[in-house]
Amino acid sequence: MKIAVLPGDGIGPEIITQALRVLDVFKSEGMKIEIEEALLGGGAVDATGSPYPEATQKIARAADAVLLGAVGGPQWDNLPRPQRPERGLLGIRKDLNLFANLRPAVLYAELANASSLKPEIVAGLDIMIVRELTGDIYFGEPRGITTENGKRVGRNTMIYDEDEIRRIGRVAFQAAQRRNKKLCSVDKMNVLETTQLWRDVMNELAPEYPDVELSHMLVDNAAMQLVRNPKQFDVMVTGNIFGDILSDEASMLTGSIGMLPSASLDENNKGMYEPCHGSAPDIAGKNLANPLATILSAAMMLRYSFNDEASATRIETAVKKVLAAGYRTGDIFEPGTQKVSCSEMGDQVVAAL
Amino acid sequence: MKIAVLPGDGIGPEIITQALRVLDVFKSEGMKIEIEEALLGGGAVDATGSPYPEATQKIARAADAVLLGAVGGPQWDNLPRPQRPERGLLGIRKDLNLFANLRPAVLYAELANASSLKPEIVAGLDIMIVRELTGDIYFGEPRGITTENGKRVGRNTMIYDEDEIRRIGRVAFQAAQRRNKKLCSVDKMNVLETTQLWRDVMNELAPEYPDVELSHMLVDNAAMQLVRNPKQFDVMVTGNIFGDILSDEASMLTGSIGMLPSASLDENNKGMYEPCHGSAPDIAGKNLANPLATILSAAMMLRYSFNDEASATRIETAVKKVLAAGYRTGDIFEPGTQKVSCSEMGDQVVAAL
Ligand SMILES: CC(C)[C@H](C(=O)O)[C@@H](O)C(=O)O
Ligand SMILES: CC(C)[C@H](C(=O)O)[C@@H](O)C(=O)O
Repeated sequence: MKIAVLPGDGIGPEIITQALRVLDVFKSEGMKIEIEEALLGGGAVDATGSPYPEATQKIARAADAVLLGAVGGPQWDNLPRPQRPERGLLGIRKDLNLFANLRPAVLYAELANASSLKPEIVAGLDIMIVRELTGDIYFGEPRGITTENGKRVGRNTMIYDEDEIRRIGRVAFQAAQRRNKKLCSVDKMNVLETTQLWRDVMNELAPEYPDVELSHMLVDNAAMQLVRNPKQFDVMVTGNIFGDILSDEASMLTGSIGMLPSASLDENNKGMYEPCHGSAPDIAGKNLANPLATILSAAMMLRYSFNDEASATRIETAVKKVLAAGYRTGDIFEPGTQKVSCSEMGDQVVAAL
Repeated sequence: MKIAVLPGDGIGPEIITQALRVLDVFKSEGMKIEIEEALLGGGAVDATGSPYPEATQKIARAADAVLLGAVGGPQWDNLPRPQRPERGLLGIRKDLNLFANLRPAVLYAELANASSLKPEIVAGLDIMIVRELTGDIYFGEPRGITTENGKRVGRNTMIYDEDEIRRIGRVAFQAAQRRNKKLCSVDKMNVLETTQLWRDVMNELAPEYPDVELSHMLVDNAAMQLVRNPKQFDVMVTGNIFGDILSDEASMLTGSIGMLPSASLDENNKGMYEPCHGSAPDIAGKNLANPLATILSAAMMLRYSFNDEASATRIETAVKKVLAAGYRTGDIFEPGTQKVSCSEMGDQVVAAL
């Protein structure tokens, strides 16, 4: 199994190092993994002028899965658009056709206090957000800033065709089948025709998944319901831009975004795996970052791309053990627990494995 | 002062009745108000075939302000698009050029428990969200569902010109000047050119308001920060669709959306005033609804359209008194307080005035 590893910017390299140590444990036990590192994001721009350089494209396309740290940082914010680090991220998503973004929002019992919500509202929270990742207003044309009658005008295009909606719908229905069999599709059908089509196609798919209970919710209401009573949700499916907003809102309900992994899959379960959090330039290089989201992303990689449920669960169990034993990086520290560095957290997970 | 009153659907008529009783108090003291009722929404469709009938257009255009209850209900959900109740709402906003939607998210001390967030996170919350209301992907063309190469395709257009951004920017900067002088502009400039222009224009306006501290935040981060630490915000300004999502999220932070009014203003402070909550068909006609958001909307009307700060404050003080005295409708009831009906709540506010 070939893994392209893209450490990226900020804390990316540190957290990736710990995830690779975890994979090394499996390798030493005989798992066949081959790792090739490549550049993505700001570091890639500095070295090559492009945030998703050709060399990286080759390695990523040839790999069975991609493990990514994080990209971006203030020093690249003022570059021209095509050179900004996030273009690298959007570029690799589109290039590898990673249309299905799975973002679990799970609250670990040991970390319940970290949430800004009342414990009874979030205890046991376990939502899976399925976000479409290669369409919508992110990639729609026409787009840009033009001058019309002497005025600057900004324009973007929200667009989905029924095939794009159907394939992400199937991923979401199947995810619901493996969980609590409830799927909530989020749209803004009362205003946007694009999302009327979204709702229509979801309804058309429903008879193929009779064991899944499909419901629909408007995006403004969904943003409210996530705050009011998030445990009403099992799987949510939505388009790229609404998914961007709602998945971040949902992950913050846990109060411990340093714990949350994500997967972005193509139609053959090739995938890119990365933590939900960003590159945290303020603590980069200080050995302070929480590597658990990246380690859990590696677990998702074993599950989805390598179909190795046992190894994935073994990593997840090790992480739970380490939390239960009281080890915490700074972002999830509370009095009475033991503060550890990024690499010490890696030590603990490796030991627990 | 001429007020067009649009009770609308569901609980609309009940809550409007209580707001009118409050205005009657001022009338009996000599305030010159003239009230004309008209149809909007589902009831208007039933009576005339249109959710914003011509008769209503005439009355609304001639009025100095519009007071609206709520529109919509399940019985109209399957009508063709142009006849749906929300088309009435979008129609009147556009017709009257009500581009500036002001949505306060305020947590009343007495109701702090109602929030799903921890008290220390939300106690004293007081955010003003300024949402652009007549542009963006809500009204952009081209739009619709077409068939291309045998596939259905849904399409909408996000569009803003610099004048539209500038005028809502000014409203937001001025709101910040009257408050804590902090303005956070929300966009998605790393992906959407439309919102790159938004950010550029906000930056261009900033020097005209040197007493206001302008910051920028990406919409996904804003959705997170509202959950993590909402009290960091004073005034937020954003486009129509992001504002739809974030203002609903922010209002739910209070846990008492039945308390929140809103104003939608044109360039001359003509405005439409309505509660943030919907038409609640499930409790319609039962005298159970909370009329306070509508009563507080009438207060906003006196403040913004009639420039009568004293009367507005008097209503707000009366509402606070009633809460302090322990009166609660069902939606905000907790043990130890006294449950009252919609009309009894109106009685209490009138008495407190
Ligand atoms: C960095 C940005 C382009 C990206 C997105 O909007 O998709 C990020 O917010 C995410 O959710 O992965
Ligand atoms: C009913 C709907 C069209 C409307 C909107 O999206 O603007 C509502 O959600 C609102 O926020 O007033």
